[in-house]
Amino acid sequence: MTVEPIRVLVNGEASNAVATTDRGLLYGDGLFETIACVDGKLQLWHLHMQRLQAGCERLGLGDIDIDALRDECLGLVDGVVRGVLKVIITRGTGGRGYRPPEDVTATRIVQLHDWPMHPESAHAQGISTIICNTRLGQNPSLAGMKHLNRLEQVMARREWNDEAIREGLMLDNTGHVIEGTMSNVFLVRKGRLLTPDLTRCGVAGIMRAHVMGLAAQENMTVDIRAITLTELQQADEVFVCNSLIAIWPVRRVDDTTFEKGPLTTRLQACLARANDDSIT
Amino acid sequence: MTVEPIRVLVNGEASNAVATTDRGLLYGDGLFETIACVDGKLQLWHLHMQRLQAGCERLGLGDIDIDALRDECLGLVDGVVRGVLKVIITRGTGGRGYRPPEDVTATRIVQLHDWPMHPESAHAQGISTIICNTRLGQNPSLAGMKHLNRLEQVMARREWNDEAIREGLMLDNTGHVIEGTMSNVFLVRKGRLLTPDLTRCGVAGIMRAHVMGLAAQENMTVDIRAITLTELQQADEVFVCNSLIAIWPVRRVDDTTFEKGPLTTRLQACLARANDDSIT
Repeated sequence: MTVEPIRVLVNGEASNAVATTDRGLLYGDGLFETIACVDGKLQLWHLHMQRLQAGCERLGLGDIDIDALRDECLGLVDGVVRGVLKVIITRGTGGRGYRPPEDVTATRIVQLHDWPMHPESAHAQGISTIICNTRLGQNPSLAGMKHLNRLEQVMARREWNDEAIREGLMLDNTGHVIEGTMSNVFLVRKGRLLTPDLTRCGVAGIMRAHVMGLAAQENMTVDIRAITLTELQQADEVFVCNSLIAIWPVRRVDDTTFEKGPLTTRLQACLARANDDSIT
Repeated sequence: MTVEPIRVLVNGEASNAVATTDRGLLYGDGLFETIACVDGKLQLWHLHMQRLQAGCERLGLGDIDIDALRDECLGLVDGVVRGVLKVIITRGTGGRGYRPPEDVTATRIVQLHDWPMHPESAHAQGISTIICNTRLGQNPSLAGMKHLNRLEQVMARREWNDEAIREGLMLDNTGHVIEGTMSNVFLVRKGRLLTPDLTRCGVAGIMRAHVMGLAAQENMTVDIRAITLTELQQADEVFVCNSLIAIWPVRRVDDTTFEKGPLTTRLQACLARANDDSIT
């Protein structure tokens, strides 16, 4: 993975710097989106923008000009065969206290990164995962959003260095399975899809929403509810997903092994042929 | 309060900018300290540095050169009669993923701000507070640290605009009293001091530690434990504290009123005359 982004715009201008008084830095006071770019097109753009706008509403960051943001993003990915676009919206610069200034203007950062290198086997055969020791705290007022307070994920991701482990799964304080450090998780049990309820913690991923939409089109039932670690271990199939990896079958969680199953394979195929009208 | 800091150093150089790839911005991956400066001296410096070093250890940010940081800070506050020094340590710049790069170097930001304006009555007579609706999530792996994931405090501080309300008190998800948005809280019940246990959430404030030390010198007993809202409401005295305000008596929590009591007054006097050997 390239450490430095290829191109960066801050509030529409080529720049790689923000003020040390930006509330994104001071408090993690903002949101982000990680968008796959293929052949100069932004995958699942409308879903990303829906979530971003909903998050801005919840945090009180004010309206964002989605048309202007889209033009900026499309300009940045023009001619890019495969890349990752990261959009960050912070509350802007303002002071030393937690209270946001009244006249604050959001900061808009758009970064183009190289596509991350993952072995094809992760998609085709599946991956090994661990259960992280770092737990997710529960906070309904922040749950679901892809906000900039991500120390839990950083601490969880620091737990392993073994390149053979492709993801770590995280539990909440009550021991329920919530998500991967960078992905959402689905289970198949008795022919039904299950995915954790994210109203108390976790990030409601765009690929999670997309997969649920495809599953509905395929007449698969998806249950959203609390999931215990035992249920995960006894699942018939497990997979993780995000906007960049799409779907990765999970073949191992610590010492528990799984086969790549028929529903996972079917959903991967659905994703591959989805005539996605939310590409922009 | 001045919105912009007076002087800023980034890694020892005069600057007001950090990279958009700084992990402090991307993930809130870092820590901060807010230090009172009086007559060019840094109050409770050693306690601040102890906490900062302990936090760096817990987050795996690596060692910081405290001597160099002190010289930098003292240079910034030279000749300053009264100011606020904010020290921010982030994990440094690195990539798009949660996993920290192996060769990352921490970013060191030091900002000098104006002293915040508060009426003398806050200290002398006391303040009105509310109980915030925003709750604190519980996460033992992050509890106690003054890290940069502070969205809960921002959301709580957005709940009121009434200037007569000087602080908001926050509960955890189980309804226990934890702290103020920018302060720690103490109760007096039957002649004993009580302050919330912060092993599952909250910031272990420097002034909280200092007050506990002074209380011990005065042979006051301090109990650290879970505290219910009812216990708060039935307390004989309540006060909040932080490094800038020292001790403010709490005269009102929503509709419950309190007198400024003898232990609060005594601790304020102790603080005022403390021959503090941790000034630098």
